Parts: sequence; structure tokens; C-alpha cells
Amino acid sequence: MAGNTEENTAGSGAGNEAFLERLSSRLSHAQLALDEATRSSYSIDQGPIVDRHLPLAVVWAESVENVQHVVRSCAAYGIPIVARGAGTGVSGGAHASKGCIVLSLERMNRILDLNPDDETAVVEPGVINAELNAAAAEHGLMYAPDPASFKISTIGGNVATNAGGLRCAKYGVTRDSVLALDVVMADGSLLHTGHQTFKGVAGYDLTALLVGSEGTLGIVVGVTVRLKYLPHEVHTVAAFYPDFRSAAAGVLAVGKARVQPAIMELLDNGTLKQLDEMNGSELQRRGRSLLLVQTDGFGAAAEAEVVRRVLAAGGAVVTTEASEEAEQLVELRRSSRGAEVDDEFRVGEDIAVPRSRLVDFVAELEAMASRYRVGLKVVAHAGDGNLHPTFWMDRVDEQTDAAALARLNAALDESIRVGLDMGGTITGEHGVGQYKLRWLGLEQPEPVRELQRRIKNLFDPAGILNPGKAI
Amino acid sequence: MAGNTEENTAGSGAGNEAFLERLSSRLSHAQLALDEATRSSYSIDQGPIVDRHLPLAVVWAESVENVQHVVRSCAAYGIPIVARGAGTGVSGGAHASKGCIVLSLERMNRILDLNPDDETAVVEPGVINAELNAAAAEHGLMYAPDPASFKISTIGGNVATNAGGLRCAKYGVTRDSVLALDVVMADGSLLHTGHQTFKGVAGYDLTALLVGSEGTLGIVVGVTVRLKYLPHEVHTVAAFYPDFRSAAAGVLAVGKARVQPAIMELLDNGTLKQLDEMNGSELQRRGRSLLLVQTDGFGAAAEAEVVRRVLAAGGAVVTTEASEEAEQLVELRRSSRGAEVDDEFRVGEDIAVPRSRLVDFVAELEAMASRYRVGLKVVAHAGDGNLHPTFWMDRVDEQTDAAALARLNAALDESIRVGLDMGGTITGEHGVGQYKLRWLGLEQPEPVRELQRRIKNLFDPAGILNPGKAI
Repeated sequence: MAGNTEENTAGSGAGNEAFLERLSSRLSHAQLALDEATRSSYSIDQGPIVDRHLPLAVVWAESVENVQHVVRSCAAYGIPIVARGAGTGVSGGAHASKGCIVLSLERMNRILDLNPDDETAVVEPGVINAELNAAAAEHGLMYAPDPASFKISTIGGNVATNAGGLRCAKYGVTRDSVLALDVVMADGSLLHTGHQTFKGVAGYDLTALLVGSEGTLGIVVGVTVRLKYLPHEVHTVAAFYPDFRSAAAGVLAVGKARVQPAIMELLDNGTLKQLDEMNGSELQRRGRSLLLVQTDGFGAAAEAEVVRRVLAAGGAVVTTEASEEAEQLVELRRSSRGAEVDDEFRVGEDIAVPRSRLVDFVAELEAMASRYRVGLKVVAHAGDGNLHPTFWMDRVDEQTDAAALARLNAALDESIRVGLDMGGTITGEHGVGQYKLRWLGLEQPEPVRELQRRIKNLFDPAGILNPGKAI
Repeated sequence: MAGNTEENTAGSGAGNEAFLERLSSRLSHAQLALDEATRSSYSIDQGPIVDRHLPLAVVWAESVENVQHVVRSCAAYGIPIVARGAGTGVSGGAHASKGCIVLSLERMNRILDLNPDDETAVVEPGVINAELNAAAAEHGLMYAPDPASFKISTIGGNVATNAGGLRCAKYGVTRDSVLALDVVMADGSLLHTGHQTFKGVAGYDLTALLVGSEGTLGIVVGVTVRLKYLPHEVHTVAAFYPDFRSAAAGVLAVGKARVQPAIMELLDNGTLKQLDEMNGSELQRRGRSLLLVQTDGFGAAAEAEVVRRVLAAGGAVVTTEASEEAEQLVELRRSSRGAEVDDEFRVGEDIAVPRSRLVDFVAELEAMASRYRVGLKVVAHAGDGNLHPTFWMDRVDEQTDAAALARLNAALDESIRVGLDMGGTITGEHGVGQYKLRWLGLEQPEPVRELQRRIKNLFDPAGILNPGKAI
């Protein structure tokens, strides 16, 4: 826990008292918490903390009407609202804003409809990604977006960040699976956007505008998603390389063979080391970089065969047909974030670069880590060119730490600049949240940012929806 | 040609003269046409005409600076601008608005970049869809969205309507392939939205908001697209059925087998009859409905085998492995619009319904055609639930025609209402344009429409960008 901690006493001031009275008027006791422990645990997500605030209260909505009541109460008193799913975001999009209430949607967790013939589902925002997938799997279907947090993150949170995951290169990101949204607007009204059909182009694409808006334009209370088919077959190839450079070249080689894997994950030596430490495995002995490729569908075996051939030709030691071990490695990769929670001393990034720049970018990252004397590990959703470098420093004492922190931040800033110079983006799938705001201006020029501020102002003129985030 | 034709004399009035002087000041002679024949031929696209206007002038932009100059000139004089690609739209999105100029982007037709390693291309808006595909094919790549007009329609026009096509169910619509846009805004400024990477979630998704906005929010002058892999193998299955109902059931059967075809087209008897007349084929003798299924990729053969099995089990007469004939049928289907251009006596619709309602909806359509004594044929991108029913009447004499036209419009209106009642949309891929505005209020309630008007007003406060369209 770090950053500037501010204490708000719940209910302090006459205005807050009147507000809390109104807020609680249509909620049960179990839906409202004012105690400091709860407020504290709901004050942050898993992102680094820049500016910590305690919310005035935590509210658990159980219905659309609850959300409307909360929004109307907040609108009447000018109280900011930070909507929150499972709090698994890593950019601070769900960090409490100053003087806000935190509105948890985790109890709105019903799958309202799942229609296997239409291949669609309608869910409340608090439904866990993995639970929707389990329900869909009974019909041979899946909800494709699979952020690494899929076992605990909510669809509403996925929508807020336009979450990605491992199999985006083939199956798309959250936006590509969302057909329609029910949204409580800043004035408490309920809006329905989109369509129940796979295709629909009537009017502007408000649904796509809302996906990824991190709770700043409205509060998503219902999501209609398209489901896809559970793959007929899955084959997994693990390719160990003597260095990261040749592993990244393997990514391009698979592309050149015109095979579209479902998953293509690239792990550097730092990540292998961490996995070995966490799991007692001996991955580092087998190579200094690992490329995991999963093909699926009716052509999975044939595709895996091509993948094996081109990767072996590029110098990889490739696992054989029995891909059970490779599948275990994918599971290890899925959980490679492990128990670590980012803070200001350990920051995971989310840069995406054009695929051809993967090799150059990682070489630059390694040079930076060495120059600034900070730790570095990199995993990448390589099929998308989406990298998650983590820079860190070990804490020693106050004076040493201050200097190291300056170096860490210099490395972070430089990595962003270099990524942008290569045609990249500061965030491929995590969102800007609170933490990445400092870099947004490097990517988007003022007119683009101003247009977004004006859209925000149109949706939320009083600025009560998750202020200080996303744009 | 029909509708209310209004004559604007080019250059009439002192204001128009001054405007045209300014407009022409930075354009070559070959970039500006004021003659009536040209103005007339650029005054409409292929959509039905509700309200026909002649533009003041037709301008061909050859550069971004040209577009900026045109927009600034129009902004200064409050002259509406209708941007236009190849004019192949079928909703009247490129019909001239009253007192407008038509800005053709067909000469901005360069592929500026095509990067096979990044699997992206940057194109000017006037590039023909098929030309981009031909360039991509040299590298084993394709631009996935394939509207039936792909041989003549432009990428800019595809972006304006968020065009679909035959292979959307597997490969997505235009929005899913567009990564970034260069857009000239209503004040003449140039804005760059989006990212060069496959994934990117920094800020609001302005790119998705602009895709499908039919030239009402800005004028697209550059498009960065993601390319996909040309399929390793393609297999095509043609299945003839005794009636449409069992053919539509075949669509669901393929879904239940969890096979995702690239193409799944459904043709009714009226369409088979038309194809026979156009091509001298004898399709009607083989069945009263045809389902065409194309599988692609490494698993294409195995998938086609499953498709054949489930369709045969559903009562279809299915073509054998040699799918050459079936491929020819897909080509026939692609050109099934033929030479016919819609007008008020022959209207093609673009309704999409949830897939499970395909059968019911077509049964309703047939009942309507019979009740209102109008012609009907139906083709459907069945994988998407996207139907293109065409209702028509034969013209006899003025009095008879007036009565028939009333019946035709009653059938059209009823088909829309029934489609919406089934959870459908008035337009799956063609756009609202000018023609479908009369139905938009049936699909979208006033608050949703008002929000779009406010977004329009934010982007284009003077209302000069394609007024009277889309929203």
C-alpha cells in the first residue's frame, strides 16, 4: 500500500449525512457498508496506486433499480460513483476517486438468458467470466474473451476495460463479443444500446463507444454477448529457444505460414525463472525463452504440425505430438501473474506494438532494464503484439529506495516512449484507468483527447461517473 | 428514377457563386463538375429515392488537403457535404442532400502501405475492396469484409456503412477489421483515431463510433485495416431442399454441430428462379430452396464432411465432394443482385433476426407477400441471421400502380415490425441512409436517438455533414 492516503470519515459533514440518508433509504442493511475496513478494501483494484482515497461508502447493487437509485442519489448530491466488478483491474480504473462511493456490481451475477440456437447470452454485469463459460460449455459454446483473470473477473469489468486475453488474435476482444448493453446513465435513466443479432448497423455504434469506457460514460447493468463454438480439438506446442529474439522470430514465422493459432504466448527468461520458483519446474534448463502455441478447431492437428515444422526450422526445441505437457505450460502461463500485486515498486505494463516490432521492442526493454538497473520480465500475447513487461526494484531502505524508484519510473517512461515510437499503444487490453493517465497525452494528441472530454461531458455533464480515469 | 426531383441551378444566387469561387480556388478543373449530367449521375446511390436533389457541384478530392479545403469552404458557407465512394450503397446514404455538394473520394485510391509481417494495410478511402484483396493475396492475406459489391465498392464506403458481406459470421464485419482512421472533421481539421496494433484500449473507441456513421460525423480519408490469412483450403457444399423451412433448419443444424462456416447463404425459390432466368441454369428443378455452405482453413474438409452429414440428415440433396459446381453457385449468389437497381417499386431490405427466428420470419414474409399481393424473394446471410428480402410490384398504369405501391409499402412496414418483434434490427449491414429513417424510430426509442443527435451535434454543430441520413 502506497501513495497519498487520505482519510474521509464516512458521513462527515451535513451534506454527506443527508446524502447517506437518501442513499440508504432504498437499500437493505446488507447493501451498504460504512465501516473503514470495508471501505478500505474496496478503495483499490489491483493497479498501482497514485492517489489513494477512501470511499464514503460501499454499495452492493442487486438490481437495475438499485443502480438507478444509487446514481440518482449521487447525482442529487454531486457524489462521484466508482463502479466495480471483481476489482481485478490492473490500471486503477476502479480505484476510489476523491469523495466517491464505490458501487459494487458483484451481486448482480445472474445469467438471465442463454440461447444455444441464437448463440447468445444475456448476463448481469457481476457474472464471472468463467461461470458464463461453464454455462455455455454445456451447449458446446464458449464466451471467447479470456483475460488471465477469467476465473475471478466479471463480464461487467471485462466490458469496462474492453478486456483481451490469450485467444484474442483468433477470437477478438470483448468489444467483438458484445452485441448490446443496458446502461444506467449519469441521470439515472436506463438506456439500451445495440442489437440482439450478430450484425446490426442502425445508428451510431453506442455499444462500442461504451465498451472500454471504464465506467466513465455510464454504468453497465446488462450485457448481451455472442457466443462462439467450443473448439472441436485443441493442440498445444511448446517451443523452447536459446534467446528471446529467436522466439519472437518464431511468432512471425507462424504468421508467414498463414496459420492462425488460438493462443500464441511468448515468455522471457525472467518469466521462466518466476514460474520455476513458483512451481518447482525446470523450465530455465530447457531454454531462455518459451513460445506456447495453441491451435484449435477441426484443423488443429494439421495447424500444429505446420507450427512445429516452422518453429523447429527457426531453432526451437519443440515438444512432440503429446501436447499434455504443453497444455500444462499454458495453464502455468495463465496464472503467471501469480500472487504478486502491482504497486509503485513493481509495475506491469501493457504495451502493444505492431507484430514485426516485437523483437526490437524487447531488445530495447532489456537494454533499459540494464541501464536503469531494474528487474524485468516479459510475457506477451505475441499474436497480437501485446506485451506485458514488468519492471521492478527490490526495496532496501528509504534512501536507496527513492533513488531506485526514480530509475524505475525512468525505465517505465522510456519503455512507453519507445513503444509509441514503434507505432504502439500504451495499453493493449488493461485500460488507462488512473495509472496510465500520465502517458495518454504521449499517445493521443490534444484534439483527440478534447473530443473525448466533450463526449464524456455529453454523457455525464456533472462529472460524477468515475472521475479522473480513462481519458 | 423516381421521387421528388428538385432542380438546383449550379451557381444560382450570389452566395453560391462566392462559395463556388472559393471551392474552385484550390482545385483543378478536372476536380470540379457543375454540369447537370454529372451532377445528376452523382446525385444518388443505388438506394430507393425518397427525396431527390441535385447537388450544387461534384468535387473529386485527390488528397487529404483537398478534402480539408472542401470541408472548410463548405463550413464557411454552410453548404452540406455528401461524401461518396463508389455509390454502391443501397440505403441512399450517398443521395444528395438539399443544396449540397457531393464529394467523391474515388480518386483517393492508393494503397499507402501493406505490411505482411504486421498483417496490416493503410489505404485511402477510394481503394476498391477487391483491389485491396488482390494486393493482400500476393502475401497470402485477405481483407475479410466482403460485401456483395466488393468488386466495385470502396473501403471508405464500406467503413461508412460498416459493411458486412458473406463471410462475416466467421470473420466479422468492417468494424472488426478497422484499426485506425484518419478523419477530416466538420471544421476541416484532421483527426487520427485508433491504433496501428491489433489491440488497443487507450481512451474511448472513436474509431468504432465513426465506422458505420455514414459520413455524418466526419469524412474518412485514411483507413488502417487488419488483414487475415487467405484460407489454406476452401470446401463448398450446396444443399437443395424441398422448402425454405427445412433449409433454414439446416442452418441451425450446422450450428448445433458446432461448425463455423466461412459462408452460409440461404436462397429461396424466388431467388433460384431469378438466377435461372439470368444464367440459364436449372436450379429450380433441383429444389425450392438452396443452402450454400463454405468452410475454409486447415479443417475445411473435415468441416464440410460434417456439414454434408447434418444437412443430408435434414432432408437436403447435398452435392458430393467435388465442390466445383457448388463454388460456381456461390459466385452466382454473390452476383444475385444482378442488374436490378432498387427503386420505390422494388425494395430490398436488410433485416437481421436472431438465428433461431429465421424460419418463422421467412414464413411471415411469405404470408405478407401473399396477403399484399406483391412479389417476394429472399436471400440470407444465414449464419448471421441477416436477410435480404426483396418486395416488388409490376408496373401497369398510374392508377393500378398507386394502389400496388400502397400495398408494397404496407408489406415493407409490416415486415419491419415483425422483424423487430422477433428481436431483430432494421438493418444488418446496409445502413439506415435516407431510406430507412422512417423505420429507425420503431427500433430505437427516443432517448437513444436523442443521444445520437447530441453526438452528431458535438461532431458537426452546423450540421453540414450528410444531413438527413443515418440517425
